[in-house]
Amino acid sequence: MLDTLDLERSLDKSTYKSQMETLMRSLRSLQKSCWEKKLPMIVVLEGWAAAGKGSLVKKMVNYMDPRGFTVHPIWPPNEQEQQYPFLWRFWQKLPSKGSIGIFYHSWYTRVLEDRLFERVSSGEIPTVISQINAFERQLVDDGSAIAKFWIHLGRKELKHRLKKYAADPLEAWRVRPEDWQQEKRYDQYINYAEEMLVQTSTGPAPWTLVEGNCQRFSRVKVLTQMAATLTEALDRLHIQAPVIPALPPQEHLNPAEPNLLARVDLNLCLSKDEYKQQLRHEQVEMRKLQMKIHEAQVPVLVLFEGWDAAGKGGAIKRLTDALDPRSYIVHPFAAPTDEEKAHHYLWRFWRWLPTAGTIGIFDRSWYGRVLVERVEGFATEREWHRAYQEINEFEAQLTSAGYVLVKFWLHLSPEEQLKRFCDRQNDSFKQYKLTDEDWRNREKWSLYEVAVNQAIQRTSTPNAPWTIIAANDKYYARVKVIQSVAEAIHSQLKRR
Amino acid sequence: MLDTLDLERSLDKSTYKSQMETLMRSLRSLQKSCWEKKLPMIVVLEGWAAAGKGSLVKKMVNYMDPRGFTVHPIWPPNEQEQQYPFLWRFWQKLPSKGSIGIFYHSWYTRVLEDRLFERVSSGEIPTVISQINAFERQLVDDGSAIAKFWIHLGRKELKHRLKKYAADPLEAWRVRPEDWQQEKRYDQYINYAEEMLVQTSTGPAPWTLVEGNCQRFSRVKVLTQMAATLTEALDRLHIQAPVIPALPPQEHLNPAEPNLLARVDLNLCLSKDEYKQQLRHEQVEMRKLQMKIHEAQVPVLVLFEGWDAAGKGGAIKRLTDALDPRSYIVHPFAAPTDEEKAHHYLWRFWRWLPTAGTIGIFDRSWYGRVLVERVEGFATEREWHRAYQEINEFEAQLTSAGYVLVKFWLHLSPEEQLKRFCDRQNDSFKQYKLTDEDWRNREKWSLYEVAVNQAIQRTSTPNAPWTIIAANDKYYARVKVIQSVAEAIHSQLKRR
Repeated sequence: MLDTLDLERSLDKSTYKSQMETLMRSLRSLQKSCWEKKLPMIVVLEGWAAAGKGSLVKKMVNYMDPRGFTVHPIWPPNEQEQQYPFLWRFWQKLPSKGSIGIFYHSWYTRVLEDRLFERVSSGEIPTVISQINAFERQLVDDGSAIAKFWIHLGRKELKHRLKKYAADPLEAWRVRPEDWQQEKRYDQYINYAEEMLVQTSTGPAPWTLVEGNCQRFSRVKVLTQMAATLTEALDRLHIQAPVIPALPPQEHLNPAEPNLLARVDLNLCLSKDEYKQQLRHEQVEMRKLQMKIHEAQVPVLVLFEGWDAAGKGGAIKRLTDALDPRSYIVHPFAAPTDEEKAHHYLWRFWRWLPTAGTIGIFDRSWYGRVLVERVEGFATEREWHRAYQEINEFEAQLTSAGYVLVKFWLHLSPEEQLKRFCDRQNDSFKQYKLTDEDWRNREKWSLYEVAVNQAIQRTSTPNAPWTIIAANDKYYARVKVIQSVAEAIHSQLKRR
Repeated sequence: MLDTLDLERSLDKSTYKSQMETLMRSLRSLQKSCWEKKLPMIVVLEGWAAAGKGSLVKKMVNYMDPRGFTVHPIWPPNEQEQQYPFLWRFWQKLPSKGSIGIFYHSWYTRVLEDRLFERVSSGEIPTVISQINAFERQLVDDGSAIAKFWIHLGRKELKHRLKKYAADPLEAWRVRPEDWQQEKRYDQYINYAEEMLVQTSTGPAPWTLVEGNCQRFSRVKVLTQMAATLTEALDRLHIQAPVIPALPPQEHLNPAEPNLLARVDLNLCLSKDEYKQQLRHEQVEMRKLQMKIHEAQVPVLVLFEGWDAAGKGGAIKRLTDALDPRSYIVHPFAAPTDEEKAHHYLWRFWRWLPTAGTIGIFDRSWYGRVLVERVEGFATEREWHRAYQEINEFEAQLTSAGYVLVKFWLHLSPEEQLKRFCDRQNDSFKQYKLTDEDWRNREKWSLYEVAVNQAIQRTSTPNAPWTIIAANDKYYARVKVIQSVAEAIHSQLKRR
């Protein structure tokens, strides 16, 4: 692919000057529209060392309003970042709606430099590639514009420039030993690059290959493409989505669909004595396991979904009672903050992922997208349909990074729920737990039943299965929850 | 001080059980009130290794709603955290309004373990102490409740427990080599602790000394004090602040007060040629300096305040034109996000501090507290009066951590401002920059003039002086800004 580029292409000074002038003016006004239309833009700059990425970024931003963009130079991950899936640190840096994020190097270092220096094995590359493609597709689906540039140099030119920079006192400090390796192992590096370009040039986020020998030419090409991408993304905002008559909310499962909740035996229960004795036993187990996951540095994420008053709080409490407070964190997820609203809906969950050796307990989770947001109409049909895949991809990234992922749906009968609502109403200490919203949700029971069944069916995967807990009896539910967490951790530890 | 403690004090099982029951119930309802009243609570646990802090935290949280608190175990700072003033990482962990932050070890490790292992010199201790006191006072003034506990053990007991834990397979992993050093160097450690307790037992945030030999006794003592602190803080919320008739906003400076703005010679200007030539020269300078601060790993923070339309944006642009985009970030500060509103007003600035070797450019800053918030009445008179000291303390922490801090007020005449407003109105490309708010602010010119003069006077310190820029002439202002930044960096580099 890269050998098809005519690296000799160039641009004379005067043409360059005039073209740049126009480009810059249009880029600046495009940036303004970005801001007004709340469009997030991601620019990825990859390519050989000394290909002029730095001076290019300079040109790029010099004409922009410095308040509308951020430049992210990507160095090797620090201690903290290494504890997470490799995309974690990039999620943290994503531009909020309306601003532009310019990545000087990016998630692609994972399949280039990391590969060249064997910080990642060739066997892992396919997974990394698919994760990157999913990542970019999710962002584009969410309305981001992405422009990716590979700035190419011939081996001779590369060597020439490295020497030149190394000799310039103002530039020398930027030339890293790794850069010389690119020249020494040019053929190997170019093969990795070709593989990357082929496999990550996707419809939503294509690569632009840039002939880099002539800086004037490459700058104009990059900025022209950037303007084009922005314009297209802005136009897309105006295109009326085809008006599909919204289907009426699905009140009942089709006979063909399995009713997973109906299968749950809600009569399962424990006597007080059985409860006491089993709870104690399970908690001792958890205590031991907690030490083991610390030693093995396994991250554990336990998420709780369920009907209102199904006993999430109580179950979380019994689970944490067993744990050392230094090794777990409980995150309740209510309405997103405005910072969170300015990002992809998964962003706020990436923010709170537990680190290696600790347990993160999520009270509600990303499943809100296909449950409450679907039922209440906060997410469009297209959005929550898409979400099943997005969620499976997200969870696959966690489990492939070694996370133990446990997903609970606490199930009870409408009758039992009503009983608990009334109890809460009459208990001054629990009243605050019962809101009008709980009553409203209750009226939508059948809508939720459909959503829950479909969500569980479409997101139960071998590595991230759902556990439906029969919660009519709190004793049974609490013990079962701890048991399930323990089992999940056990089997993960065995796998190591 | 510590030798006055009667370490033999103890509690029998039954008394303990009954007292804990009551304590736990009251703590739980106190937590609920915290949440409702949006009171942030900070609990600091320090003391000897194996003093039972861990099991204490467990007890503490077991009866709380896990959604209302976070436990922060404090390990040595990671790479990223080491790049900032030592309090940075604790600012990041402060509880938001309504929640409880429990610090298992804390900022006090800086004057204890860091000192024992000579990660900090005795010469630095007084500064650290004063920074800690300022930090806690600021939080309490902002409405936080702080309870600090020193759990004390005799040397014999300490040794006994370390041995016991080391022998317990479930506990051994928590005993660090450092812990044994506490025993070996008991006398030295206790001296450091005494010094710390004496100098940081302040009115707003006193220490509670806890006899630790009997765990039952120490738990009850800690929880009792915690409940007391919470209750008192909640009561304080009900106490009507004495109704001082608010003074009318100060329209004019008293003759005694210096009018610093009036002294500015607004006729200073540059011809286009002088501008071009000097700008070029200054920008080349900056480019060299940027390399130097990278080598010396100096963090630089440049903040811009000034009248509307005084040319902040243009000045920032000319400054950044000279820089490599990988080495600076521009942060515009508009209205705080709701996450930011849930914290101390300085919190959001701590969030965006530049790291070593980079330049952070703040478009508006914490001075909003004593400028717009004062004039618009968003901050009470007490709050903005207090803010002068808070700001000076904050800036002292930055400069003592090696930051270059440059503070600009861009000054112009009301006439020039009017001219620029009109220009903007007539320029389709600049219209968006002119808001009704700008016109409203303009009407309050004299109020702002007073606020600005007083802010500059009260916050110009040797290490963090203000630079007032004559901005009637944009050419002059832009060159002067870059010059001033360069000078500040130079003198800092010389000092090293």
